[in-house]
Amino acid sequence: MALRVAIIGAGPSGLAQLRAFESAARKGAEIPEIVCFEKQEDWGGLWNYTWRTGLGRYGEPVHGSMYRHLWSNGPKEALEFADYSFDEHFGRPIPSYPPREVLYDYIRGRVEKCDVRKYIQFNTIVRWLSWSEETRKFTVVVDDLAKREVREESFDRVVNATGHFSTPNVPFFEGIDSFPGRVLHAHDFRGAEEFAGKNLLLIGSSYSAEDIGVQCHKLGAKSVTISYRSAPMGFRWPMGMKEVPLVKRFEGNRAHFADGTSATLDAVILCTGYQHKYRFLPNALRLESHNRLYPPGLYKGVFWQGQPELAYLGMQDQYYTFNMFDAQAWLVRDVIMGRTALPSAEEREADIAAWVEREEGIQDSFGAVDFQTAYIRDLLDRTDYPGFSVEKVAELLKQWLRDKQEDILGYRDRTFTSIVTGTRATPHRRKWMDELDDSAESFLAEAPERRTG
Amino acid sequence: MALRVAIIGAGPSGLAQLRAFESAARKGAEIPEIVCFEKQEDWGGLWNYTWRTGLGRYGEPVHGSMYRHLWSNGPKEALEFADYSFDEHFGRPIPSYPPREVLYDYIRGRVEKCDVRKYIQFNTIVRWLSWSEETRKFTVVVDDLAKREVREESFDRVVNATGHFSTPNVPFFEGIDSFPGRVLHAHDFRGAEEFAGKNLLLIGSSYSAEDIGVQCHKLGAKSVTISYRSAPMGFRWPMGMKEVPLVKRFEGNRAHFADGTSATLDAVILCTGYQHKYRFLPNALRLESHNRLYPPGLYKGVFWQGQPELAYLGMQDQYYTFNMFDAQAWLVRDVIMGRTALPSAEEREADIAAWVEREEGIQDSFGAVDFQTAYIRDLLDRTDYPGFSVEKVAELLKQWLRDKQEDILGYRDRTFTSIVTGTRATPHRRKWMDELDDSAESFLAEAPERRTG
Repeated sequence: MALRVAIIGAGPSGLAQLRAFESAARKGAEIPEIVCFEKQEDWGGLWNYTWRTGLGRYGEPVHGSMYRHLWSNGPKEALEFADYSFDEHFGRPIPSYPPREVLYDYIRGRVEKCDVRKYIQFNTIVRWLSWSEETRKFTVVVDDLAKREVREESFDRVVNATGHFSTPNVPFFEGIDSFPGRVLHAHDFRGAEEFAGKNLLLIGSSYSAEDIGVQCHKLGAKSVTISYRSAPMGFRWPMGMKEVPLVKRFEGNRAHFADGTSATLDAVILCTGYQHKYRFLPNALRLESHNRLYPPGLYKGVFWQGQPELAYLGMQDQYYTFNMFDAQAWLVRDVIMGRTALPSAEEREADIAAWVEREEGIQDSFGAVDFQTAYIRDLLDRTDYPGFSVEKVAELLKQWLRDKQEDILGYRDRTFTSIVTGTRATPHRRKWMDELDDSAESFLAEAPERRTG
Repeated sequence: MALRVAIIGAGPSGLAQLRAFESAARKGAEIPEIVCFEKQEDWGGLWNYTWRTGLGRYGEPVHGSMYRHLWSNGPKEALEFADYSFDEHFGRPIPSYPPREVLYDYIRGRVEKCDVRKYIQFNTIVRWLSWSEETRKFTVVVDDLAKREVREESFDRVVNATGHFSTPNVPFFEGIDSFPGRVLHAHDFRGAEEFAGKNLLLIGSSYSAEDIGVQCHKLGAKSVTISYRSAPMGFRWPMGMKEVPLVKRFEGNRAHFADGTSATLDAVILCTGYQHKYRFLPNALRLESHNRLYPPGLYKGVFWQGQPELAYLGMQDQYYTFNMFDAQAWLVRDVIMGRTALPSAEEREADIAAWVEREEGIQDSFGAVDFQTAYIRDLLDRTDYPGFSVEKVAELLKQWLRDKQEDILGYRDRTFTSIVTGTRATPHRRKWMDELDDSAESFLAEAPERRTG
């Protein structure tokens, strides 16, 4: 009898898993019975933009952390699927840094082509999951939010692809509970327009602070002050943006920083990261981690050491994204299908320990890119995922890091050459800082000079 | 062996249940083994104010819907505990409409006095609950959020006291997804200061719209437009506040209403009510209701008809609050302790049907008050809860309704006489519209003229 496999989440990593199975099926293999549960009403995970914040239509925590103006903050050539190029999807070269609608379109294109929507049950949340040693099966309690129907199902394998950028980490700062302006976490940021003319404080020093800060600056914030805990990002900020040490306390609308300075503010955006949160899992199956390149407890970054019938996709801190999820999903597929055997628990433990040790030796962001490149290479060598030079992608990522250091407002104006197709990206018709139209329609329109010339 | 009883939630209704058991114990009765699970880090439910919105410290949906400036929107004499008066708590008369900190203090006073905190496990959420016909017990999966420990416990009875004003109902309106200003549900409203000088749209026509509208007006909103679906609230709004028919669509920052008018707006607050949402319950145990005076399926408004070992507290639309929860909790206690037997399923069904039919005949808000008064009278006559004239409280509530019709900005300046103690409330030292200090400290300070005079 065919195995039953539950895939939880139909975002980029869950879709990679569906695509991996479908790819085997199209080559004639007999694949397991697959059911994918997706909490949202459509696929795409974080890329399925929603205007909602807090709790969604059916009262469940909103998954998305994306804002209207989001543009890719890394070159598309670094996340290109090896089996579905941007050229194949768009039919012509496009710029390297697309806005969110364009990337979402690309993600959908691959899964529409391979017809995996049939596996997905939308508006369906996993409430609880347990493993029985006796039957060696998982019992999954799912709640169909639209039909308001709860049921239990039994599975042999589970792939947790629910992501880890959905549950905000929100620290308390003295006095923040009586700050008179808006206080929000980056997870709830949907647009910069309401902050035009305002003095903003962003707390954090990673991608959210960097990009939301730049977006608010672009859309007319009066000032953007970014407060860091341990070290500043150190970009060359334009006039109106600066970094200061951590907030010690708020007094009314005034923030006092660790260096003794203070500022009067209209709004506070907490760019303080996300929690790994898997509400539906018991302790024995639950990954406890922060955002890091090699969360311990996952063999090859995916198989739960305590119960390898459970796999986690994409739970790493990410330089690579879509292509890494693919490399993981192909390996998970092959193990589930019995094409690849897992080594003993001791061997797995030793392998995890070696990777974690290597991670702990990383010195800088270039080293982090090299680490994740080596991790993906290790995965790629184990499956039939279409070959691509992840080492060449690493060079792109390092160039991207240099570009940002050089010009945090202008790095999105650069173009890269695809590792998959060799196609050189076209420049966008205007500089990103001058482009106020984030729509796919505008982005994908031919450049005016070419249409009229 | 003593029964084990789980009480889910330590807000006003859960605390009423704890108090009911403790009251019996103090009279010498042997009470069941009680465990109360509370998701928040402290008791008080909605009255435990939090600055957080969306997801809380541990990534669970925030329970509270309360804002910094909230003052009671009904006279305190209408919600006074019959067994713990305001006089007993404060030692002297106070005004009829206290701010939130003062009411929270009062709620805490009673439960601190009767020492029920020992029963409560804080930071503990119920993940899943199931009933076994075989063992005739509930299995409850609880997750200790602070310790990150999940465990299962077995109970004979469960009291669901999780409330129904925590999960926002958020309808979609065309164009709201690209409205450039802030869009929030009343659940996430924490303060009116950020809306000073702004043109606000509130959608809804119940307590949230009324009170948030008035608060924003008080704190300097430029205009407050309230959009209703079926009928306006019809209060005598001051200059700067008005009611209009339902929004049909948004275009940028402009809302178009059903009557053909439109308005340019800075922010939208959805006062569109709450969902009954019990994520931890399977269909067979889950109340599906909207906000109404007699949700079907609950015998005497509390015992789940399909499985009367499960009780729900406070799931009604509420004119009465704390004293109604008490009346319910005392009856639930007596049934659990075997002091009162439940009639047959058929008799319970007929009783529910009669109440629901009566509810459906209600003509206006006075009729609604009478209905809930009769309901509470029916409960009071069945237990040893201290006698109080709920019929006299009904007169207070009708006066309150008239006061609001007369002066929606000034009704909080009125004073009432306690039904429990006969004490007349003191007037507050200044009119509510002129009082910008919402703190308990200020409210409970003697009026200056009395201190100095």
